[in-house]
Amino acid sequence: MALIVQKYGGTSVGTPERILNCARRILETQQAGHQVIAVVSAMSGVTNNLIDLANQVSKDPTEREMDVLLATGEQTTIALTAMAINDLGGQAVSLTGAQAGISTDRVHTKARIVNITPDAVRRMLDAGKIVILAGFQGETASHEITTLGRGGSDLTAIAMAGAIKADLCQIFTDVNGVYTCDPRVVPAAQKIEEISYDEMLEMASSGSKVMQSRSVEFAKKFGVVFEVRNSMNDQPGTLVKEETPGMESVVVRGVSLERNQAKVTIDDVPDRPGVSSVIFGAIAGANIVIDVIVQNVATDGTTDISFTLSAAELPKAEKVLSEVLPQLGDKVTMRSESGIAKLSVVGIGMRSHSGVAARMFGALAKQGINIQMISTSEIKVAVTVAEAQIEQAARAVHTEFGLDAV
Amino acid sequence: MALIVQKYGGTSVGTPERILNCARRILETQQAGHQVIAVVSAMSGVTNNLIDLANQVSKDPTEREMDVLLATGEQTTIALTAMAINDLGGQAVSLTGAQAGISTDRVHTKARIVNITPDAVRRMLDAGKIVILAGFQGETASHEITTLGRGGSDLTAIAMAGAIKADLCQIFTDVNGVYTCDPRVVPAAQKIEEISYDEMLEMASSGSKVMQSRSVEFAKKFGVVFEVRNSMNDQPGTLVKEETPGMESVVVRGVSLERNQAKVTIDDVPDRPGVSSVIFGAIAGANIVIDVIVQNVATDGTTDISFTLSAAELPKAEKVLSEVLPQLGDKVTMRSESGIAKLSVVGIGMRSHSGVAARMFGALAKQGINIQMISTSEIKVAVTVAEAQIEQAARAVHTEFGLDAV
Repeated sequence: MALIVQKYGGTSVGTPERILNCARRILETQQAGHQVIAVVSAMSGVTNNLIDLANQVSKDPTEREMDVLLATGEQTTIALTAMAINDLGGQAVSLTGAQAGISTDRVHTKARIVNITPDAVRRMLDAGKIVILAGFQGETASHEITTLGRGGSDLTAIAMAGAIKADLCQIFTDVNGVYTCDPRVVPAAQKIEEISYDEMLEMASSGSKVMQSRSVEFAKKFGVVFEVRNSMNDQPGTLVKEETPGMESVVVRGVSLERNQAKVTIDDVPDRPGVSSVIFGAIAGANIVIDVIVQNVATDGTTDISFTLSAAELPKAEKVLSEVLPQLGDKVTMRSESGIAKLSVVGIGMRSHSGVAARMFGALAKQGINIQMISTSEIKVAVTVAEAQIEQAARAVHTEFGLDAV
Repeated sequence: MALIVQKYGGTSVGTPERILNCARRILETQQAGHQVIAVVSAMSGVTNNLIDLANQVSKDPTEREMDVLLATGEQTTIALTAMAINDLGGQAVSLTGAQAGISTDRVHTKARIVNITPDAVRRMLDAGKIVILAGFQGETASHEITTLGRGGSDLTAIAMAGAIKADLCQIFTDVNGVYTCDPRVVPAAQKIEEISYDEMLEMASSGSKVMQSRSVEFAKKFGVVFEVRNSMNDQPGTLVKEETPGMESVVVRGVSLERNQAKVTIDDVPDRPGVSSVIFGAIAGANIVIDVIVQNVATDGTTDISFTLSAAELPKAEKVLSEVLPQLGDKVTMRSESGIAKLSVVGIGMRSHSGVAARMFGALAKQGINIQMISTSEIKVAVTVAEAQIEQAARAVHTEFGLDAV
């Protein structure tokens, strides 16, 4: 008998019929001899409807109250899912985040889990019940309702799996698992059977949005093995776990792409201490997330600094920079460019295999694709290219590293 | 400075605009120098939608889960109402039943309040906040969500007002108060300024459905003065309170009518002990609520027993009785009649004024209306008449006791 945590996202529980499908799967898992905790999200569309309602009564809804409001979405799903299981002959009980002992800090709408006391969950499991747990929510020490922000239900599942020492955590979603690349771009992409936490993190931060990084980081920190799989079929998915020696034999695990990027270049920046801090301090102060930063060595006492960011954030970045750049001297100029995209190859095998970057650049050169910026980490090589060429680039690199399905 | 509990029903908070209206009224009450707790119901329609959802995933939804599901209705309203008040410049915080310390027994879908610990509410009021409290819900000692059943939000308001020793409890609804009779039947009906708990209880049990009896009983038990008033205007409503000596000067406070009644008569019942228990034990065993019971003295060793009940319950009653009556002997027969209605006059003044029943019967006789059954309590006289004549009867009796508006 294993203890299994399952998580079903908003699409998987989006209609009463889909809830019944999930209920059947959950019950079958128990009937196969396991203890089951199922974490569910709000039915797809519900959260947006609630946000619409809030905007109809308030120009700037209080965050504490937003949490009280949004938490009803998951509370609705847990009740319906438990009812559905009971109707199928099972014995299920629902628990809100608060009832399940999920304690968070007080940062409403994006709270962090600080502790989980799974006593009530354990008691119900031991009584033979299936536990249906509301994702995305918890409560503060003073019993205020909080929500965990984007990707919160994944986090609930992984954190509960860690706290209760589950044998496996299954993240059910609407894709079959993690792919070597987005199959809509690279038709030859294959489902990855096993991937390390670090690779998954690099893939997530490189545009492969199967899961939010924070959930993967949490899983890595607490050693929670989890599987990403499809709620609409019975195929095994992708297992995400601590790296094993065997994993290194694959040089590149996957290729990620991220579109809608923009690049800002600041020219003729004086090469003296404190300059970067003026620039990136202003950017951070405006809550703009930037990605790749490149700075060349100085010539003639000045240098150029470039960085990429989401194209949607470009106007805000330009405004902020135009206010601070005069501090750096008269000659400093700024130019920007949108219509670029980022391509990354990720794999822990890079640590022991040299020449990955060179092979990637060569594959792109063969296609006549110009590389604009380069950034690397221990297990990743990322380049920016013109957005119009990103799909061609992805296919070429995917083939180069032997990832195409046979 | 007074401490005021207000309650807004589902119609009063039925749309975002109406929530904003309530928010304005709540904030104005605080700005007039008072501390305010506002109890809100689910937006009208929401509870039925949730029940529909439940029925789509389950033939017989688990009652525990039904409570988890339905409680989201009020939780949505408290968040929206608090946001709306904050948007208007006030400081409001929402509380679920559990957060507000409302403890109930474990009878899901119709729980009873066993205790209220208003510490959190008190703390927020003392910090200058307006408290928006979810009606209709509480939690058990083991932190399970419960709902209070029909009229639950009124009960929440009255119970909280009692527990926190509020100066006044205002029940906002879609009528101006309690009337001497239903104005759709008796156009001359007037709003009653003050009414005693006992009169209100008799009115409620006689068909005047402004509030459920259980809330009035609770108010009486704990001496909570409350006012029934309209959320759509600023007119004073009806004050419900312990009787005062002055109240007795009015002989009849109001006239109630209840339609869709049926009558069952059992003839030639042997006049011996245990007979009633067979009949009414069977009726109670089938969960049928009966109203007036009349039994005449026996002649020739047999008697007739009649009782009234809701016409909708008549087929069930006939079935149950046909099974048990043979136990009482061969001669016993049953007949039934629907299409009857009940008319009641209620007033604590009856205790000190004689002849109320005679005046009522006289007024009905003058109209040629036949009285079928009579039942009386210390402060009520009720008769059943043909349903076709109930409106004429109500108007005649309303005039007889001087209740018509001048």
